[in-house]
Amino acid sequence: MTDISMIEAARQRLGTRAVYTPLLSSAFLDELAGRRLFVKPECLQKTGSFKFRGGWSAVSALEAEVRARGVIAFSSGNHAQGVALAAKLHGISSVIVMPSDAPQVKIDNTRAYGAEVVLYDRLTEDRDALGAELAAARGLTLIKPFDEPQVIAGQGTVGLEIAEQARAEGIDQADVLVCCGGGGLTAGVALALEAKAPGLRVRPAEPADFDDTARSLASGTIERNTAKGGSICDAIVTTEPGRITFPINKRLCGPGLVVTDEEALRAMVLAFTRLKIVVEPGGAVALAAALFRRDEIKGDAVVAVCSGGNVDPVLFADALARFGS
Amino acid sequence: MTDISMIEAARQRLGTRAVYTPLLSSAFLDELAGRRLFVKPECLQKTGSFKFRGGWSAVSALEAEVRARGVIAFSSGNHAQGVALAAKLHGISSVIVMPSDAPQVKIDNTRAYGAEVVLYDRLTEDRDALGAELAAARGLTLIKPFDEPQVIAGQGTVGLEIAEQARAEGIDQADVLVCCGGGGLTAGVALALEAKAPGLRVRPAEPADFDDTARSLASGTIERNTAKGGSICDAIVTTEPGRITFPINKRLCGPGLVVTDEEALRAMVLAFTRLKIVVEPGGAVALAAALFRRDEIKGDAVVAVCSGGNVDPVLFADALARFGS
Repeated sequence: MTDISMIEAARQRLGTRAVYTPLLSSAFLDELAGRRLFVKPECLQKTGSFKFRGGWSAVSALEAEVRARGVIAFSSGNHAQGVALAAKLHGISSVIVMPSDAPQVKIDNTRAYGAEVVLYDRLTEDRDALGAELAAARGLTLIKPFDEPQVIAGQGTVGLEIAEQARAEGIDQADVLVCCGGGGLTAGVALALEAKAPGLRVRPAEPADFDDTARSLASGTIERNTAKGGSICDAIVTTEPGRITFPINKRLCGPGLVVTDEEALRAMVLAFTRLKIVVEPGGAVALAAALFRRDEIKGDAVVAVCSGGNVDPVLFADALARFGS
Repeated sequence: MTDISMIEAARQRLGTRAVYTPLLSSAFLDELAGRRLFVKPECLQKTGSFKFRGGWSAVSALEAEVRARGVIAFSSGNHAQGVALAAKLHGISSVIVMPSDAPQVKIDNTRAYGAEVVLYDRLTEDRDALGAELAAARGLTLIKPFDEPQVIAGQGTVGLEIAEQARAEGIDQADVLVCCGGGGLTAGVALALEAKAPGLRVRPAEPADFDDTARSLASGTIERNTAKGGSICDAIVTTEPGRITFPINKRLCGPGLVVTDEEALRAMVLAFTRLKIVVEPGGAVALAAALFRRDEIKGDAVVAVCSGGNVDPVLFADALARFGS
């Protein structure tokens, strides 16, 4: 199970390969948030999201001869790119199983990171069976997106950096808002802060209708979403909290925060105008919670992780036109 | 005159107030550039450009009783915001003299940083006379945008960081491309690298028709631009190189690089898609030179400073629509 020593070991293995993302702030956003607001821009991470940290951690933790046979992952988005680049930098092969209707740009990007992309038809083919067959035939190791201790350890390196950066800013009490899908980033950051900055408390942020973690934290047991899709926050839409991540998050996190799609878009535009970073809608929900749920947050400082920036330019330009002035 | 000890002293005075901006990279951009490309995103700096460094350096270098009377600057853009925030953080007043036809958002932003904005009519009023009158009446100190040794020293802190970051990446020979208007950032970075990373050579990057520094470096004497305006790279459009900055740049810089407005826009869009940063056209000319003037650059690595990100959302959305796919 992931603990602080695994997170610190993941950081050692990462070395300087991950960007040590700065803490950004803006007097304008402080005013909107009603307190000092610090943004951790993981959109600036290699491959455009924090997922590179977990991908590298998991691939680098494999025994050399296992790793040499290659890895496989299921993902249509950020995890695909994180695993593909981690494999490429290790000089091993990777297979990424993606739905055939995934955006062409994501397929192209994953291939450009050196992965072999295997497409499947979501209506007629069984992804898991296809992946299991490939893995068995080639001896590939499956890298899961969040319910995997070494992936959680890699995402936890974000928390180690936040602990150091908050200390440098003189902050020892604050909520740390984390965009939450399966809960791997949330759990990793929570574990790191428990050990290194116990006055900082993680709170997951989710889009409306996909607030499974918020509801699960409230009830104390895993709750599923009834909605199947339709959120623009595609990067963090999951069916339910992870079996490994949820117990960690239940023990360590404060109540979840939930924002609307429009609030996520407004936060995305404010990150553009005020912080000069490109955030995707799903990566902006924590910032949206800091800005638009201020009454649900306590204290004179708050940290929000902007988890990814792989956004469609047309969607982005449309949001600028709607909310940019 | 600015030297390395002044730059190091400016860094001491800045402390942790400036963002230590990371070095970003992307395998896609490496391929376009034909070599390893590292981007120093000063658009992520406080106030959205490197100008905060020089503003802070100059304000903090004043004697306390002189500083207490306040400062004044002429600027419609990034220097205005840099000086205004530096003054606010020192608890002193600032007056920024801006043309009355400056974009309302820039006027609003400068006021929001605590400055008193004095508007003048460019057709009927003499800006310098107006400023001199205000300065004399109130005992304000003028902070020039580039031809001022302490401003150059502040901008030089970008060079100190590049020297450290290049060393960490194992780079000891490279061209460092710097967006160049009056030449303050160029001169500061060149002085810092001369002392700390002598294998790194600064080369100024400019937009077509405003390539006064490139032509001046070629001829060895100060050359003026004949064009008066019309570039979208407004942040770095000047009439001629500075009287203090040019001798420094003549001694230390390699040949200038010149890009078209369209290349600057394409670089801005590539910074969006590949690095997840928001860069203004004038702040993207160095990146454009790295991507589109690869035959004029030698070596297996290049560094480009993206100097600012204060871009109009409508212009940005339009560029995404034109070049984003």
